[in-house]
Amino acid sequence: MINIRGYMRCFLTPLFAFLFFDGFSQLSGHTATITSVCFSPDGNSVASASRDKTIKLWRVSDGTLISTLKKHSEAVLTVSFSPDGNLLASGSEDNTIKLWRVSDGT
Amino acid sequence: MINIRGYMRCFLTPLFAFLFFDGFSQLSGHTATITSVCFSPDGNSVASASRDKTIKLWRVSDGTLISTLKKHSEAVLTVSFSPDGNLLASGSEDNTIKLWRVSDGT
Amino acid sequence: MINIRGYMRCFLTPLFAFLFFDGFSQLSGHTATITSVCFSPDGNSVASASRDKTIKLWRVSDGTLISTLKKHSEAVLTVSFSPDGNLLASGSEDNTIKLWRVSDGT
Amino acid sequence: MINIRGYMRCFLTPLFAFLFFDGFSQLSGHTATITSVCFSPDGNSVASASRDKTIKLWRVSDGTLISTLKKHSEAVLTVSFSPDGNLLASGSEDNTIKLWRVSDGT
Repeated sequence: MINIRGYMRCFLTPLFAFLFFDGFSQLSGHTATITSVCFSPDGNSVASASRDKTIKLWRVSDGTLISTLKKHSEAVLTVSFSPDGNLLASGSEDNTIKLWRVSDGT
Repeated sequence: MINIRGYMRCFLTPLFAFLFFDGFSQLSGHTATITSVCFSPDGNSVASASRDKTIKLWRVSDGTLISTLKKHSEAVLTVSFSPDGNLLASGSEDNTIKLWRVSDGT
Repeated sequence: MINIRGYMRCFLTPLFAFLFFDGFSQLSGHTATITSVCFSPDGNSVASASRDKTIKLWRVSDGTLISTLKKHSEAVLTVSFSPDGNLLASGSEDNTIKLWRVSDGT
Repeated sequence: MINIRGYMRCFLTPLFAFLFFDGFSQLSGHTATITSVCFSPDGNSVASASRDKTIKLWRVSDGTLISTLKKHSEAVLTVSFSPDGNLLASGSEDNTIKLWRVSDGT
């Protein structure tokens, strides 16, 4: 039996993310104020920076948490995707900028 | 009789929004500081985030309020459109990110 | 005699703004903190929002002030260009969003 | 003997910056809160604004500091690249906007 659902998720979601999204989604998990929110260039994920010192990556189609990036030692104030969507840059009150590869969340 | 005005609004506004805009427009309705303002990718609407806990969507051509998104329980600090313009992501002092479908404002 | 300088400014600046810019420019005039800075999509002008309640538009090639937009009654926190570069949206502590046509600064 | 490493850096890095980046990088050097972070349009560099009154430019592929722009006399709150990536605009609590040519960091 063909796993049509899995097939659709893997191959079609990038093109039809909008169809899978049912109109409203609340992304919960951060424990402090959200300071910055940013869509990936392909529109399939969202990165959020928080005063809880972490960045979180979320899948737009179903609102699931993809990864939590924890290396900053103070509040994260700003986050943005590289133009090709492969990297994230974050800036913090810990005086550092960090670059993250999106694919493995390291 | 052809409703030429309605016809123009539906079909032509997306292409000529600039022509319908008469030079200056004040978008009033929020009851606290505007923290973030963002044009949709097609330039036809503007989203605004406010400390009054809501996000508002405005039509650029005539400055009318399209919808008010009220689900955050604290000030909204950041808002941005997805690259295709179908979704909005908002971040708040209530520690959540919310995704909204622009078409139905839910 | 052909006004070659004026000709170049009118017709060539949009394409070669970079060539006319001599490497560093300080844009002075605001009387309070700059809260937001934004290039126009064609890269020829910069909009700045300030706590002095105004938005200023600057020409990149020579750093001259094009116009000062004064209709907000409190600090301006955010400014952004429409995708086609014809409009500016600004958000303020006076609870309003204002849309401005860039060409006439009204 | 051909300097293949130098060749690769000069000619291939712009296309394959992602390959040279090993997954995580911490950009240290600022001495106060990072207020704004921004990728260049080609994705090869990152600009950071800080409350330490400077802007720093970083190479993405290996995280090295390219230049430190020091002309603001107060905290820098916002920085952004021009659409062609040749210029940077910064806004500060010293009430000025500064334009910088990226290539020479002046």
